[in-house]
Amino acid sequence: MEVDSKLVKDLREKTGVGMMKCKKALEEAGGDMEKAIIVLRKMGEDTAAKKSSRGTNEGWIGSYVHSNGKLAVLVEVQCETDFVARNESFQELVKDLCFQVAASNPVAVCREEIPPAIIEREKEVYAAQIKGKPPQIVEKILEGKLKKFYEDSCLLEQKFVKDTNRTIQEIINDRVSALGENIKVSRFVRIQMGS
Amino acid sequence: MEVDSKLVKDLREKTGVGMMKCKKALEEAGGDMEKAIIVLRKMGEDTAAKKSSRGTNEGWIGSYVHSNGKLAVLVEVQCETDFVARNESFQELVKDLCFQVAASNPVAVCREEIPPAIIEREKEVYAAQIKGKPPQIVEKILEGKLKKFYEDSCLLEQKFVKDTNRTIQEIINDRVSALGENIKVSRFVRIQMGS
Repeated sequence: MEVDSKLVKDLREKTGVGMMKCKKALEEAGGDMEKAIIVLRKMGEDTAAKKSSRGTNEGWIGSYVHSNGKLAVLVEVQCETDFVARNESFQELVKDLCFQVAASNPVAVCREEIPPAIIEREKEVYAAQIKGKPPQIVEKILEGKLKKFYEDSCLLEQKFVKDTNRTIQEIINDRVSALGENIKVSRFVRIQMGS
Repeated sequence: MEVDSKLVKDLREKTGVGMMKCKKALEEAGGDMEKAIIVLRKMGEDTAAKKSSRGTNEGWIGSYVHSNGKLAVLVEVQCETDFVARNESFQELVKDLCFQVAASNPVAVCREEIPPAIIEREKEVYAAQIKGKPPQIVEKILEGKLKKFYEDSCLLEQKFVKDTNRTIQEIINDRVSALGENIKVSRFVRIQMGS
């Protein structure tokens, strides 16, 4: 099979292995990048899996550890340039987001990232809670409960703990306007001792 | 069914809901804690799922963010008392472990925690690499390669980056002796921008 030269270039960048070998590996792997890395390794090439995790995005990962050492958070915030990533107002946003995640314990960044099983569980619970209500209002109640769940569980929809009149998305939008770059919360991690 | 009173007490502690309701929920859930929490919620009790994540272990979660903001680490280290958790020498250990995870990118804390799929992948790669070698030495080579993989991938088996003559487990054992408490790395998180 013919392999796209862009793929060959990507594989070379990821692994540091020569062009010809990368081409051969991609052919053997049917164009699948991850499989091609395995093929290269089988060929005896040193393509430390770690190299494949190199990335080029700009932004900043912020951290927060609670003063008792038992709750800690990382939040990855992406933007378009390193210049903005180092800007004081961007750094302040990252800090605020860390504090928000620590204080408000979101389930995910946005609705799309909440695991379907959790949504199903919620719906099941609500259905049981409103059993016996008139059918014409059931849908409305369900909708309201789910909306509330999203507002509690999605970081971007949560009220900002430092200014509960505004959502996190609004706080981010302010900085997007002020800094003139797209800003995206790409992920967060929150760990609490004993859970 | 008769429910163990200890379970009822645990559920009460987790949810803050009254004893009788907890007992009823556990009976309905056949003694399953997680299911009982769902039952309580269906009964309309406010048992914020969050409460169920309360814990009582002692220790400290350390953090490290690389100076470019693109690599960040959390390490949870547990001990037996809050007194030791706040001890300077313990805190220094936590800091060293964060730095180690950032620098050496382990896959897991120990062998048991490496996903079986990764071990299978490694074995497959090694098998292909040594194809054609005399069968009597194949097993030895495989064993050696796997040992090397564990030493690179398990935090506890890695060489300490600040003193490569010693493993992380040895560094931890030193503190266990000095502080007189069991010390356990319970988990770590490492995120790198764009990966």
